[in-house]
Amino acid sequence: MLEILGYVEKDVRKMEFNQILDEDYKLIWMDCYDPSDEELLAISKKLDIETDELALGLDEQEVPRVEEEENYYLIVFKAPLFEEDITTTSFGIFVKNNIVLTIHKDKIKAIGKLHRAISYKKPRNVLDKGNGFFIYTLLNQIISSYSKVLVKVEDDLDILEDRILQDHNKNLTDDILQLRKMLVYFHKALISNKDVISLLKRKYLPITTQEDRWEFEDLYYDIIQLIDMETTYRELLSSMMDMTLSIENIKMNQIMKILTMVTALFAVPVWITGIYGMNFKYLPFSEDPNGFWIILFISLILIIVVMYIFIKEKWIR
Amino acid sequence: MLEILGYVEKDVRKMEFNQILDEDYKLIWMDCYDPSDEELLAISKKLDIETDELALGLDEQEVPRVEEEENYYLIVFKAPLFEEDITTTSFGIFVKNNIVLTIHKDKIKAIGKLHRAISYKKPRNVLDKGNGFFIYTLLNQIISSYSKVLVKVEDDLDILEDRILQDHNKNLTDDILQLRKMLVYFHKALISNKDVISLLKRKYLPITTQEDRWEFEDLYYDIIQLIDMETTYRELLSSMMDMTLSIENIKMNQIMKILTMVTALFAVPVWITGIYGMNFKYLPFSEDPNGFWIILFISLILIIVVMYIFIKEKWIR
Amino acid sequence: MLEILGYVEKDVRKMEFNQILDEDYKLIWMDCYDPSDEELLAISKKLDIETDELALGLDEQEVPRVEEEENYYLIVFKAPLFEEDITTTSFGIFVKNNIVLTIHKDKIKAIGKLHRAISYKKPRNVLDKGNGFFIYTLLNQIISSYSKVLVKVEDDLDILEDRILQDHNKNLTDDILQLRKMLVYFHKALISNKDVISLLKRKYLPITTQEDRWEFEDLYYDIIQLIDMETTYRELLSSMMDMTLSIENIKMNQIMKILTMVTALFAVPVWITGIYGMNFKYLPFSEDPNGFWIILFISLILIIVVMYIFIKEKWIR
Amino acid sequence: MLEILGYVEKDVRKMEFNQILDEDYKLIWMDCYDPSDEELLAISKKLDIETDELALGLDEQEVPRVEEEENYYLIVFKAPLFEEDITTTSFGIFVKNNIVLTIHKDKIKAIGKLHRAISYKKPRNVLDKGNGFFIYTLLNQIISSYSKVLVKVEDDLDILEDRILQDHNKNLTDDILQLRKMLVYFHKALISNKDVISLLKRKYLPITTQEDRWEFEDLYYDIIQLIDMETTYRELLSSMMDMTLSIENIKMNQIMKILTMVTALFAVPVWITGIYGMNFKYLPFSEDPNGFWIILFISLILIIVVMYIFIKEKWIR
Amino acid sequence: MLEILGYVEKDVRKMEFNQILDEDYKLIWMDCYDPSDEELLAISKKLDIETDELALGLDEQEVPRVEEEENYYLIVFKAPLFEEDITTTSFGIFVKNNIVLTIHKDKIKAIGKLHRAISYKKPRNVLDKGNGFFIYTLLNQIISSYSKVLVKVEDDLDILEDRILQDHNKNLTDDILQLRKMLVYFHKALISNKDVISLLKRKYLPITTQEDRWEFEDLYYDIIQLIDMETTYRELLSSMMDMTLSIENIKMNQIMKILTMVTALFAVPVWITGIYGMNFKYLPFSEDPNGFWIILFISLILIIVVMYIFIKEKWIR
Repeated sequence: MLEILGYVEKDVRKMEFNQILDEDYKLIWMDCYDPSDEELLAISKKLDIETDELALGLDEQEVPRVEEEENYYLIVFKAPLFEEDITTTSFGIFVKNNIVLTIHKDKIKAIGKLHRAISYKKPRNVLDKGNGFFIYTLLNQIISSYSKVLVKVEDDLDILEDRILQDHNKNLTDDILQLRKMLVYFHKALISNKDVISLLKRKYLPITTQEDRWEFEDLYYDIIQLIDMETTYRELLSSMMDMTLSIENIKMNQIMKILTMVTALFAVPVWITGIYGMNFKYLPFSEDPNGFWIILFISLILIIVVMYIFIKEKWIR
Repeated sequence: MLEILGYVEKDVRKMEFNQILDEDYKLIWMDCYDPSDEELLAISKKLDIETDELALGLDEQEVPRVEEEENYYLIVFKAPLFEEDITTTSFGIFVKNNIVLTIHKDKIKAIGKLHRAISYKKPRNVLDKGNGFFIYTLLNQIISSYSKVLVKVEDDLDILEDRILQDHNKNLTDDILQLRKMLVYFHKALISNKDVISLLKRKYLPITTQEDRWEFEDLYYDIIQLIDMETTYRELLSSMMDMTLSIENIKMNQIMKILTMVTALFAVPVWITGIYGMNFKYLPFSEDPNGFWIILFISLILIIVVMYIFIKEKWIR
Repeated sequence: MLEILGYVEKDVRKMEFNQILDEDYKLIWMDCYDPSDEELLAISKKLDIETDELALGLDEQEVPRVEEEENYYLIVFKAPLFEEDITTTSFGIFVKNNIVLTIHKDKIKAIGKLHRAISYKKPRNVLDKGNGFFIYTLLNQIISSYSKVLVKVEDDLDILEDRILQDHNKNLTDDILQLRKMLVYFHKALISNKDVISLLKRKYLPITTQEDRWEFEDLYYDIIQLIDMETTYRELLSSMMDMTLSIENIKMNQIMKILTMVTALFAVPVWITGIYGMNFKYLPFSEDPNGFWIILFISLILIIVVMYIFIKEKWIR
Repeated sequence: MLEILGYVEKDVRKMEFNQILDEDYKLIWMDCYDPSDEELLAISKKLDIETDELALGLDEQEVPRVEEEENYYLIVFKAPLFEEDITTTSFGIFVKNNIVLTIHKDKIKAIGKLHRAISYKKPRNVLDKGNGFFIYTLLNQIISSYSKVLVKVEDDLDILEDRILQDHNKNLTDDILQLRKMLVYFHKALISNKDVISLLKRKYLPITTQEDRWEFEDLYYDIIQLIDMETTYRELLSSMMDMTLSIENIKMNQIMKILTMVTALFAVPVWITGIYGMNFKYLPFSEDPNGFWIILFISLILIIVVMYIFIKEKWIR
Repeated sequence: MLEILGYVEKDVRKMEFNQILDEDYKLIWMDCYDPSDEELLAISKKLDIETDELALGLDEQEVPRVEEEENYYLIVFKAPLFEEDITTTSFGIFVKNNIVLTIHKDKIKAIGKLHRAISYKKPRNVLDKGNGFFIYTLLNQIISSYSKVLVKVEDDLDILEDRILQDHNKNLTDDILQLRKMLVYFHKALISNKDVISLLKRKYLPITTQEDRWEFEDLYYDIIQLIDMETTYRELLSSMMDMTLSIENIKMNQIMKILTMVTALFAVPVWITGIYGMNFKYLPFSEDPNGFWIILFISLILIIVVMYIFIKEKWIR
């Protein structure tokens, strides 16, 4: 799918594919989502970029980086991917003259959001400043979408901690695993993205102005902050995992104590009833009208003694 | 909330907001805690610093750093945050001419303490030396407040260790988790703070004199000492966590041994009583007046034999 | 075993061993798999490379590297090895004038594949560009074979995760161990291979043209991507391992709870039946026609009370 | 407490505090242990070193380092501290002209030892070579005292290993924890000390001669050796910790197997006796004089069958 | 013990101690194993090397390194030590003019082997090339003896893995611990040795020719290969350790399931027999001739129902 927006005479217009070489436009944004082979070929011909190169943007695992080619620039970046689980996906940004082409296999929320914002709000301040600032706005949107997820993680962790201390069940382990999985993907993505932003802020590239580079500087600190948060959360998660294990063990001990107590309390009394249940002609006290009460009394004393021992050993608190 | 203290003619005075551009004052400290949007705007206008920039000081997760802007300096630093748990929070220090502006979202103990100290004691030696020394005093106060917490941690660890060796319960695991959590936050904060102090001690900045830089040198060693302590404590905590797990296992073994012993001791005797409880016409010894005693004697012998086996196998010590 | 393909006059021909010094051929590929001592000696004589050096390519553990000798080049590289388990093996590439000699102890899938491709498809574009590009094609094939395995691992991990959450058994642990083992071998191999590719892309070697080096640049990003994937998978596996342990513990708790409940439910009722089974002359209620029902009723009440306690304590959900 | 030794005319003499500025002495060693505030002030005045600076030597957590001040040198170093547990403590060495001042809060064995050695043996060869060599002797003594502890650790580890393989109890876990704790403290201390020694061996300081620096070179290798030992021991300890956990688990399995066997062996026989204990008018075989023996025989057969199953399943070996 | 071999006129001869300064010999190898104090002193005098320095070679923990002294060279290297366990030990190589002195506290297999090889085979090619090549031969022998052990470890690991999957017992844990211990020692030793070889291959030392350095280059790759192997094995071992833990847990679960099943199956039937064993005048069905069979039938139904529940819950497979 290919959607093209052009900015000309302070206005944002929807464009057709064959208009894209029109140089009157100050900025043309082509967003290409999961393109068919024909679309890819058409773009390749029109922009004079090899399909192999364009396909880099469609590989979900591609390493984030900046590449300077003869007549265009390629930025590969990683964005959060909201499918069943939250993982990450790579996408490509090709910059050639006044054209910015974003190309991606997966649906990327932040790009959709920016697209809607530009279509409806037509924000001059973003588009007037040219390619470099537009790319900054795009990457900033991506970073924000990481940020939103990570801020939510902090709340999740607090809830998890409370649930662990109250009670523990299978779903909890599952939740922890899902969080760890997401943080592993985010960690890899943010580390690689940091290198891209670091290069964009440092290196002179004709597509960015000095002011754009200052903006990337801010973005750089944002990404470091995210890495910091994500590392902290991972360590907290790992502490929690350890704690659940420890709590499970403590609970097991308590269960076993109850089992042992129940077994121990009735071991001797049951044996005694067994003894008096034996069919002997002669049983001591059996003729005695108080015999039953004597034996019952002895049994209860035994139960109380064993109970007392457990209380003294602090098995019951 | 905004509180302003000015130092002029060897005296500390409370100031109004509209006085702050008065250049007669040697040093003006504006402390801005959780400001409203209007306050932020007013400060922004008065000091000619963009609200976006001021807001950096209000982001609790902001990365500690030093930024040189055209007409002011910004230091972001992390302080301990004493809420329900002990975590950390970022705050900003803006320095412009004779004005030092501290801006923070959360209540920071160390700043409050310094504020009271300056309001009441009016210490000349701190304020005479100018902006650089004042910033040193402020950061020193922050570092001290980390230090106080960490010194207490050492005692906590000793208490924990004793409690682990005596007995173990759920609260213990909770305490360990809380400590680990705090140390994780402190670790991240101290590492970033170290970079700030390192830059302040090394780099020539117009706001610090050579003597201030020597003071920052001392602070640098203090912060390294804190990182060292905190790392040591984290390793000790992790050793303790391992130990609690091991002790839980040993206890479980002991509980299971008791259960097994109780079960094993009475298994055969109870079976014997069952046998003699069967309603057969003919039971060996059942007519014998000593039958009961013979069977009881055999049962007791069996119990003693099993007990002896357990003692020999060192299940009972 | 020794198989030789020669490229001459835009055609690929099978060659005999004694033809290999024929300089008319643009490119000669000798593939030597698990050679006998005689073969090794013959190659050594013909190519004037010491047998000791040739043997480097046969050591499965040899460290990947590039060596420049006086009259030839040696590249040692690690390929995946598909035996019972998937591990890795080293092989050697010797380049001398128009000859490329690959020498390996183990069967390497990627080499076999390339051999078949060249024998049957006779691809001009690969062979026209000379030694450097041929080596690139070969190493690219190797990297692809890592890639195929790792892509499959992602699916394996998803399946594993589902199986862990549903149920857990011995085979699962075994599967996890096999995956970890493979990833450990892949990690070591890819890290060393990266160094080889990094050198080939950076360093001027007479066997590679500038264009070849650009291709190696792409390969370099591919290998980084693989390392990234492999590290992520290892971390996910380790999370899963932790989770299985935790789930095992939770299950154990549940089993113990059932055992304890069963034991506790019948402890008192069984004792009561024992009491009324004692052979005393006088037993309260024993003469009462309703005695049986009274005792049965009391027993059932006791069972219900204990059951209620367990439900309240949330042992049964 | 303050003890002063002076070396003059090839002799060692006890000195009074007011003599210490006597320049006839080749070397004056002031050892100041846990000084009162008055002592500290007196030393400060006499030597013209600020009390704040002197107090650095009394902070047990101070970071080891070398500081060059205008008129003196400060070396902070970490020594083993033999209290209830073995941990580490920092102490300070101030060098000014012919005076070496050691200042410490805690009792340091190595310093005491050196003090006695110099008081009684009055070793010329140590004292003739001046300040630098004296400092070397002192630090060497400290390093030796680490070394003695670590050599003992090796034996402790062997004993621990034997005890783990024989049997396991609570004290063992405690011993492992104490060792780990000590090694954590030693690790931090030795790493920091290494930096001090490294600087003393490399850097030209007026207090050390070239020959002293060669001695520090040897000390540097000693300290690297200690770090090596300590790291090895920590890894071995951690292996042992893992092993105890595994052994605990194996033991638990064995206990549970015994419990399960005992329970399983008598489950059916006890049920059978229960069946024949029921008070029915008609019980099969109950009138039969061999009934008892038939049922007993069946029960024993059942017990033997169950036992056989356990042996076949290798629960009994 | 001191054994001396001299190489002169293409022949290897046993030498006496007082001949060692004979300069006609091209190469003199003194091998000194666990020397007495007198031997040490004699060597010290003869070679003009201080006993303190010689003693470095006798310290089993000495750090591997190369030292250039005024009139000799010292190489400290670590060799595998085959005692009860396999650990490592340091030994010293002193090179002075035509003399190579190896000095060691422990018996080192590789040295013994080389000694026998030279005594009996008298290999000219080794001895003709001088000191440097002789040292290379020696170190090569040491590295080979590491290599042999590590190659055996791979087989051990395969066997261990099979044994873990089949069954698990105490000895297994012990074997794993022994392997881990050995690999910890080897890791430290190989890392330090690598530095020595790296220096010998890079640095110009008068004792090595350019050709010797090329040989050391090969040795360097060998040692990297060993480190690679050893790291891989350690990671595999740690995976196995995790797996044994997991398998132990699974087994425990199975044992507990059996225990719980046995207990649950007979809980109600035993209670029922107890009920009918009570001595009441009136028991329902007790007069009924089929009463016994009815109750038995109900009990069997209960047992089958409980069994069915366990099968449905997949406790029995």
